[in-house]
Amino acid sequence: MKGYNPNQWFRILFLIQKSDTLFRLAPLMLIILVYSLGVAWIEIEYLQISEDSWLQYLPAMHSLLSFVISILMVFRTNTAYDRWWEGRKHWGALVNCSRNFALKLSSMLATDDHINRKFFRRSIPVYAFALKEHLQTKVTLFMLDDVGDEEIKPNIDITKHVPNQVAKIMFGRVNKLYEGGKISGDQLYVLNNEITAFTDICGACERIKNTPIPYSYSSFIKKFILVYVMTLPIGLVYTVGYYAAPITTFIFYVLASLELVAEEIEEPFGTDLNDLPMEKLSINIKKHVEELI
Amino acid sequence: MKGYNPNQWFRILFLIQKSDTLFRLAPLMLIILVYSLGVAWIEIEYLQISEDSWLQYLPAMHSLLSFVISILMVFRTNTAYDRWWEGRKHWGALVNCSRNFALKLSSMLATDDHINRKFFRRSIPVYAFALKEHLQTKVTLFMLDDVGDEEIKPNIDITKHVPNQVAKIMFGRVNKLYEGGKISGDQLYVLNNEITAFTDICGACERIKNTPIPYSYSSFIKKFILVYVMTLPIGLVYTVGYYAAPITTFIFYVLASLELVAEEIEEPFGTDLNDLPMEKLSINIKKHVEELI
Amino acid sequence: MKGYNPNQWFRILFLIQKSDTLFRLAPLMLIILVYSLGVAWIEIEYLQISEDSWLQYLPAMHSLLSFVISILMVFRTNTAYDRWWEGRKHWGALVNCSRNFALKLSSMLATDDHINRKFFRRSIPVYAFALKEHLQTKVTLFMLDDVGDEEIKPNIDITKHVPNQVAKIMFGRVNKLYEGGKISGDQLYVLNNEITAFTDICGACERIKNTPIPYSYSSFIKKFILVYVMTLPIGLVYTVGYYAAPITTFIFYVLASLELVAEEIEEPFGTDLNDLPMEKLSINIKKHVEELI
Amino acid sequence: MKGYNPNQWFRILFLIQKSDTLFRLAPLMLIILVYSLGVAWIEIEYLQISEDSWLQYLPAMHSLLSFVISILMVFRTNTAYDRWWEGRKHWGALVNCSRNFALKLSSMLATDDHINRKFFRRSIPVYAFALKEHLQTKVTLFMLDDVGDEEIKPNIDITKHVPNQVAKIMFGRVNKLYEGGKISGDQLYVLNNEITAFTDICGACERIKNTPIPYSYSSFIKKFILVYVMTLPIGLVYTVGYYAAPITTFIFYVLASLELVAEEIEEPFGTDLNDLPMEKLSINIKKHVEELI
Amino acid sequence: MKGYNPNQWFRILFLIQKSDTLFRLAPLMLIILVYSLGVAWIEIEYLQISEDSWLQYLPAMHSLLSFVISILMVFRTNTAYDRWWEGRKHWGALVNCSRNFALKLSSMLATDDHINRKFFRRSIPVYAFALKEHLQTKVTLFMLDDVGDEEIKPNIDITKHVPNQVAKIMFGRVNKLYEGGKISGDQLYVLNNEITAFTDICGACERIKNTPIPYSYSSFIKKFILVYVMTLPIGLVYTVGYYAAPITTFIFYVLASLELVAEEIEEPFGTDLNDLPMEKLSINIKKHVEELI
Repeated sequence: MKGYNPNQWFRILFLIQKSDTLFRLAPLMLIILVYSLGVAWIEIEYLQISEDSWLQYLPAMHSLLSFVISILMVFRTNTAYDRWWEGRKHWGALVNCSRNFALKLSSMLATDDHINRKFFRRSIPVYAFALKEHLQTKVTLFMLDDVGDEEIKPNIDITKHVPNQVAKIMFGRVNKLYEGGKISGDQLYVLNNEITAFTDICGACERIKNTPIPYSYSSFIKKFILVYVMTLPIGLVYTVGYYAAPITTFIFYVLASLELVAEEIEEPFGTDLNDLPMEKLSINIKKHVEELI
Repeated sequence: MKGYNPNQWFRILFLIQKSDTLFRLAPLMLIILVYSLGVAWIEIEYLQISEDSWLQYLPAMHSLLSFVISILMVFRTNTAYDRWWEGRKHWGALVNCSRNFALKLSSMLATDDHINRKFFRRSIPVYAFALKEHLQTKVTLFMLDDVGDEEIKPNIDITKHVPNQVAKIMFGRVNKLYEGGKISGDQLYVLNNEITAFTDICGACERIKNTPIPYSYSSFIKKFILVYVMTLPIGLVYTVGYYAAPITTFIFYVLASLELVAEEIEEPFGTDLNDLPMEKLSINIKKHVEELI
Repeated sequence: MKGYNPNQWFRILFLIQKSDTLFRLAPLMLIILVYSLGVAWIEIEYLQISEDSWLQYLPAMHSLLSFVISILMVFRTNTAYDRWWEGRKHWGALVNCSRNFALKLSSMLATDDHINRKFFRRSIPVYAFALKEHLQTKVTLFMLDDVGDEEIKPNIDITKHVPNQVAKIMFGRVNKLYEGGKISGDQLYVLNNEITAFTDICGACERIKNTPIPYSYSSFIKKFILVYVMTLPIGLVYTVGYYAAPITTFIFYVLASLELVAEEIEEPFGTDLNDLPMEKLSINIKKHVEELI
Repeated sequence: MKGYNPNQWFRILFLIQKSDTLFRLAPLMLIILVYSLGVAWIEIEYLQISEDSWLQYLPAMHSLLSFVISILMVFRTNTAYDRWWEGRKHWGALVNCSRNFALKLSSMLATDDHINRKFFRRSIPVYAFALKEHLQTKVTLFMLDDVGDEEIKPNIDITKHVPNQVAKIMFGRVNKLYEGGKISGDQLYVLNNEITAFTDICGACERIKNTPIPYSYSSFIKKFILVYVMTLPIGLVYTVGYYAAPITTFIFYVLASLELVAEEIEEPFGTDLNDLPMEKLSINIKKHVEELI
Repeated sequence: MKGYNPNQWFRILFLIQKSDTLFRLAPLMLIILVYSLGVAWIEIEYLQISEDSWLQYLPAMHSLLSFVISILMVFRTNTAYDRWWEGRKHWGALVNCSRNFALKLSSMLATDDHINRKFFRRSIPVYAFALKEHLQTKVTLFMLDDVGDEEIKPNIDITKHVPNQVAKIMFGRVNKLYEGGKISGDQLYVLNNEITAFTDICGACERIKNTPIPYSYSSFIKKFILVYVMTLPIGLVYTVGYYAAPITTFIFYVLASLELVAEEIEEPFGTDLNDLPMEKLSINIKKHVEELI
């Protein structure tokens, strides 16, 4: 039971990584800061509006709306997290079905059937690498360079959907084993779930990648945040003067961070720090499949 | 790692697309604006109610209710999003089962069985197109024009449920292959999930399309928003005078936008900008199936 | 893209249907109104309590509690909606499995096997009608009058669980087909999911119907609403005088509507406007099954 | 369409059942009441603290925290409800698989195979009763008294896991039927889901029963409620005097009720009013199985 | 029906266990306390800022942000709880599939096939123990010491993925039984779900263990809490003087506790008090498997 280290918390405060929302929102926060100072200057120096102007009651509107915007943003981030977690689940399922596929084939294939063992030892991890590159739309045949199997590389047309082709080659081989009597019909059944799972996982990841949240929803959220934040200093200046600027900026930081975190994690197949470690997972699949078959 | 572009945010603010809620709520917002100004004029010029009228405390009621209305609207939008996402999932599943069906049949059918290969190469995408048109209730035989298969087009009665008929034709063919000994019983079983999935997906999409949220729920939400917004200026005028009008209008914009976004996305099978890209998905299915079989 | 019709919103405001919560809560709202006026009269005319009575701070308590009651009620309605939607999903699944069952049998049965075709064409829709009547506890044999099949009607004992008996008759027939060699073992497998689904759906609907939310939970919610609403005017009278009455009544309307909507939709198998269109779904099943087999 | 009966609501207010949270929290509420009165007395009579003591601003802290505590408690209750509903779903699944198992066996077994029919007619309901008693940890052989089957009662060792033994006896019989050729391999497969479901349901119920929410979570919630409630009168006394006591008590009632309801329903397998009607469900299973086989 | 014991609640208040968040946050809370006192001293004694400084309005910002931070933290804890519960579900599934696997094999294997019975009686629980140690990354062969089966221990290479190897050994044996004709193809299929489940569960637990929530999300939450709490006393000092220190500390305690509870329970496979009782579950699996086979 480790005591809870205060250092860890305070280090977090000052540790600003490149992927940090603070770092990425900096230019926008600067604009908001300058804008708020401008609003304060105009109201105080230029207009010199009297103490009892109606403007002092404007924060009441922000109060009424603060519930909506708060709940909206937290739900937004939560929905994005659900997508991220769903993406992770699919890659977890890919790990599982790769292992199960290898483990089952390992028992079913004759111990000395080196050709088929080698085929699957190579093709199963290739699926994972191909899916990773497919999702990052940078498909190359590079990943196949060390496969060295004359049945995989020459049969893949890089201009078409690569994971589909790998799945087709694998199922073709399983079906050939069945028709050649090397595995029985019962064993074919037992392999069916894993065969189907590869393509299901690929389709699910494509769905997450290709479907941003509805345009009118995300556009409304951004509009709402900006109008909310940009009208905020107008009323705040009455009570806190020039200090309205840092307060407005901090409130913008909080709301925009939630939006930014949501945008980053709702599409988890990129190469950012927050994205899924697909490279590492693929290497793990390779390692475990090679241990099993 | 791209820095976060401020332009993008501010462009959002002024970019008013046709599908934008701001654009669509404009007439209603105008009415609310005029109404609020009217309320302000009556209270200030006509009634000239004294400073200590009870009306100044009316916003307290709006405060108490602002929690309910905020949470209610965010949940409303979230529930609608869940339906939208569920619809997307079903179309993703259609992509998956089309691919898996093609991929499995491709291995099972003899390489030179051009008749059956051609049959499935054509009928699988037809299901997707038929489902799309069925959900948009504009079923035509147009989509079948380039099918050119004497087994599909002539067997479809456009006055009946088209996707069901396509599914029936496909399963009929699979069953014929089985009874003719072209695929074994084990292989029939391996194809079962995909066969069943087509009709399950169709039924699930119909469910989402045909089931709006319960009438008394949606009716209550609209009534609540209107009463809330229309009583708001009555009290606000005391503190902010004529400015109660823009404030009321903005609060209405926020609440009604959430309702509007919810209404738009809870039925995702139309042809709006926010609706699912079923046309594109169907074309993808066609492309991938043709690559596979 | 249709512009958003203001009429629709304002019509909603004045359109009070019988199923509307406003209509159904009317007597209760009247009582609350009279009670609030009574409280106001006592405090103002009878007790004539001084300006600085502690009572003026009572709304602070309502403020503190307004979060809990708001979130609680929205969650309550949401949970009820989830049950309603789950019920709808099960009926959607019934549509799907009826179709799949018909579609598969249609291919498996010999084209001239009119007896079995007729049997399933009749028995599958009977299941849907029987389930509907079972859930509305008004089971009659009336629905079987046009079945005209000597194998269904005479075998059903209306005093027992009718859907179970229909399922048993259907599975018995499938099993007889299998034992008689009319469908193979592989085909029996292929039909298994659909056979099982009928009874699973029935059980799930019964579960939703027979399980209200826990008593101590719903009792607490009602007590909380009533105490909250009935203490509200006591404090409000100080600031808004007799107007406390309409305000209290409106707040009661909002909270009680959420409870009422929740109660209505959490048991979706009745005959209310908000209940599932089981009759229509059953007729659809009948129509589609007859198209397919 | 029934009008909404006001009586029902008011009866709820005064109807205090034994299982009511009000009844069960009474002693604790009395303590809080006395404590609050004590705090008020000390502040008013003894300390006679001046009007402008900082204490009058303490409620600001309670305001800031009222969001957290409100949302936290509602989520707490909701999570508990999810567990309760999950438990209910598993018992619903038990109903379903008992029915499907009986219904399938009824068709598969020869009409005159009275021995096996009787065996399953008795053993299937025994599973439900055994699970109920297992979950209430009061397993007796009493429930088997009217089974009268020499194959069930003598084979059960009450000191071991009883539902497991019943499942084992049932699967053993199914396997014997298969090995003896009374059911085919295809039929064995058709029965597999139901066989597996019994044990899955038992395990899921055990999981819900044996896993309370994490200790540090529930301990934090209780601490938070108590500190929140016990510091509340300290500040309230300034504005509402002795009336701080009933207000504090009511706020405690609301928060503690939510915690209490959560505790009651998160473990739904007891014998409380809020617990699942397992006895009734088991009797139903018995009745329906006997109708079917 | 037990009355609700007040003692239990008050004991909770003073019972500070080692795993309690209060205990673990103590050093951090002390720092916040000292910091707040420092802020108060500077403002009151040193700066002696006038009564109408803008600083007195700073709490308004905290008010606006209190919704966001409250909802955010409760969602954070809830998401963590969902992971914890998902982990628990997977271990529950491991219990179920271990039992089902044993129960099915027990019927399938000949009564006198002591070798295979002994093999599975030993290997099934070994999987659970191996998974537990794998998740706690302390894999040793110690757990196998009392297995005494020459087929398990010698075949496990402790430097590779141990649960995978156990699964492979088990499936290898099942496949050998099938190829040797000791179980039929139908029986192989009946065992397939359980075989696959072992590896699926392992993969799912690894996923939960190896995937913390996205870095930019958790970093933002910590930054937000700290800035919120550390600016709080600056404004509070004006209204409550030195008492700002305990208030700030308590608010920090609440927010940080939620974060801390979330961090503890989102990775449920450690050895903390809040972690899953994997040791106990494994022993239970061992006990029940030995009762069954």
